[in-house]
Amino acid sequence: MTEAPTPAAIALITLGVADIARATAFYEALGFIRSISQSNEQVTFLKAGGVVLALFGSADLAHDANLSDEPRGPFGGITIARNLPSKTAVDTAFRQALAAGASALKPPQDAFWGGYSGYVADPDGHPLELAWNPFFPLREDGGIDLPA
Amino acid sequence: MTEAPTPAAIALITLGVADIARATAFYEALGFIRSISQSNEQVTFLKAGGVVLALFGSADLAHDANLSDEPRGPFGGITIARNLPSKTAVDTAFRQALAAGASALKPPQDAFWGGYSGYVADPDGHPLELAWNPFFPLREDGGIDLPA
Repeated sequence: MTEAPTPAAIALITLGVADIARATAFYEALGFIRSISQSNEQVTFLKAGGVVLALFGSADLAHDANLSDEPRGPFGGITIARNLPSKTAVDTAFRQALAAGASALKPPQDAFWGGYSGYVADPDGHPLELAWNPFFPLREDGGIDLPA
Repeated sequence: MTEAPTPAAIALITLGVADIARATAFYEALGFIRSISQSNEQVTFLKAGGVVLALFGSADLAHDANLSDEPRGPFGGITIARNLPSKTAVDTAFRQALAAGASALKPPQDAFWGGYSGYVADPDGHPLELAWNPFFPLREDGGIDLPA
């Protein structure tokens, strides 16, 4: 019996954080749902649409990947995005994120690609985009369906 | 009429890359499916299970987030993970990634949390974990279902 091949996918995103409780409170305030059974003092797992968002100590995450947790700047080379159903919803989510402890990086504005987008930095500085994209249908779970 | 609230979700992950064609070839070799209609020379979008994986110029991505694309080390503070149905599938995916141009960071091995995991660095150095997690059911689309 052969296993059916698993489609190539990203199942989990892990953010390295300085304070797991603080980071957890931030993402819960944004409306992400924490898994009670899988989370503990060392790691938090949150439902994030079609993917799982994990919060883990930054040094522990670097060590897990066999990398050094050297001092790093505000841009780590990766961004994550939450998509929303309208410009108004982006504005609301931006204010919600600031109220929950994020810093503003870029106020929501019309984007060159035809959508509307802003950026905040979460309490650990990870850039989070808040976007309305009229070309990518939004699913009920908050993910997007990528046209072929 | 009020809009139904969108569940908090991460819809898209964007990797800043030095060479979009090279990065695209790498992720296609791993089995990610490129959107023909949405991709162009400036950006690639790939189906990645329940989330979309985008490849965008690193300087352009930093600029979009209103951050400076300063030199950065190998650990940017975020990792992404592909989950697989068995230890053997992790070993196979690890070899596949190396053959496609990744560098080994950590060979697949039993993990302290009861699973099996290895890490590669993609051609731009982004750490990609390849993991078997017996506690998170794998969906048909390659994503995982997070227990409550």
